[in-house]
Amino acid sequence: MKADSAHIPVRDDAADEVRERRAIGWRGGNSSERIEKLAVEEPLEIRLAGRRFTLTMRTPGHDDELAAGFLFAEGFINDASELGEIRRVRGRKGAVEPNAIDIILNVPADGLRARLKRNFVMSSSCGVCGKTSIDSIRRRVTPPADSARIAPATLLALSEKLRVGQRVFAATGGLHGAAIFSLDGTMLAIREDVGRHNAVDKVIGYALTNAMVPLARHIMMVSGRLSFEIVQKAAAAGVPILAAVSAPSSLAVELADEIGTTLGGFLRDGSFNIYTRPDRIAD
Amino acid sequence: MKADSAHIPVRDDAADEVRERRAIGWRGGNSSERIEKLAVEEPLEIRLAGRRFTLTMRTPGHDDELAAGFLFAEGFINDASELGEIRRVRGRKGAVEPNAIDIILNVPADGLRARLKRNFVMSSSCGVCGKTSIDSIRRRVTPPADSARIAPATLLALSEKLRVGQRVFAATGGLHGAAIFSLDGTMLAIREDVGRHNAVDKVIGYALTNAMVPLARHIMMVSGRLSFEIVQKAAAAGVPILAAVSAPSSLAVELADEIGTTLGGFLRDGSFNIYTRPDRIAD
Repeated sequence: MKADSAHIPVRDDAADEVRERRAIGWRGGNSSERIEKLAVEEPLEIRLAGRRFTLTMRTPGHDDELAAGFLFAEGFINDASELGEIRRVRGRKGAVEPNAIDIILNVPADGLRARLKRNFVMSSSCGVCGKTSIDSIRRRVTPPADSARIAPATLLALSEKLRVGQRVFAATGGLHGAAIFSLDGTMLAIREDVGRHNAVDKVIGYALTNAMVPLARHIMMVSGRLSFEIVQKAAAAGVPILAAVSAPSSLAVELADEIGTTLGGFLRDGSFNIYTRPDRIAD
Repeated sequence: MKADSAHIPVRDDAADEVRERRAIGWRGGNSSERIEKLAVEEPLEIRLAGRRFTLTMRTPGHDDELAAGFLFAEGFINDASELGEIRRVRGRKGAVEPNAIDIILNVPADGLRARLKRNFVMSSSCGVCGKTSIDSIRRRVTPPADSARIAPATLLALSEKLRVGQRVFAATGGLHGAAIFSLDGTMLAIREDVGRHNAVDKVIGYALTNAMVPLARHIMMVSGRLSFEIVQKAAAAGVPILAAVSAPSSLAVELADEIGTTLGGFLRDGSFNIYTRPDRIAD
């Protein structure tokens, strides 16, 4: 299908994050019809200079940040200056296509080819063992700043701030959240998505396009569990302290150990665990 | 890296699902060292006749089911008879590689090429809108049996059965679960994984290799949220009733609507919602 790009600014106020749906609720032996709010899930096609690059299932809104954060966190761009233009795409009938975005990079063609190849080799060779994956990532990530510190009481307060900020989750119960805080516990940005990795990409994209990367004096917190992939993305953005409401995986902890990220888990109800680099948790 | 396949049966009793790790726990203003159990996350490389096919981050255990379920749910094989041999791989030094699996399919080479191409076209063209994705999937999925019925009280009891069956989740808090039940509420299989889609692939792989597919008189239940992808996989296995502890996405409900799957959400604490085909919930 032929499609033309056009200079259409990416608008987030048009975002369609919640959709209503008739459902039947069963409560205490009785059933009744009710209106339920659903978190919207739609595919987003990310194009590079008009060519299809990748597809992700995401919640609409902040698509520009999602694309920018994805490209940066996965190593396809090195900094914000390599992001040229981010634009919407027009379909055959001239209407703006809500589920596609086109990005023009300021990267020479052979430089981009080398990066695509490197990423391909990494993802196709890391099957052999987790150690290989960790080695590949460690080679392309700068260790986070040593000097960042957060007080335990400040860290404890973040889970409630994240919960309050998860506007769409509150309505639907269906979204992951990721937020960036300053070391004094001020929330600087929060993003939500049906995909855990997308919420992280969006918040990293926000930081990247607002000249906040590397996030050397910041904390990232996510609403769910911590996988290898989330630690990798946070490390790419220079985050020294990464926390989650729920559990980390074994490989998430191993990667954080190697990189030097402080990893916190089960941050909720007045307690938390620190798995790596506890020296950054101090009054 | 050169690697030789060998006839090594896939053993699940050697599965390494939980790993212990020293952590610092903060509780009520005090910190103390403790041993935490982590859900294991490791990459699995799935090979087809020795060639790298795909890579997934998974929890070790039931790798054969994971590979079989993935290939079936994604439309690369049509039934169990097309699964030839599933075998472990030996690395250069002769040791069994725990994170790779090789599959020989009983599919003629050009038939397989056509399927790979069809899947590629589908995943690269469905970016334009969710409607296109739904159409592609509807075309290759047989609508589930109309006759399956489950009593509301039987359905209500499933969430507790799933919870009790999530052995590794209970230890780590870090795993998704997927289970298959008969219409009288008997749990027939449960699988856990750090990846939600992997838990579903494993349980479908179990059903496939035990001659239970299509799962026309069964219920599938998952521990987390319901995405488009989960509905797609369940539909491929012929599941008429799919339920989740948490929320469905908008596209999950739309796909279930089109296919004719009964979709239940928020199945916990004595209540649930039914979004599509409520006629299958009956005493």
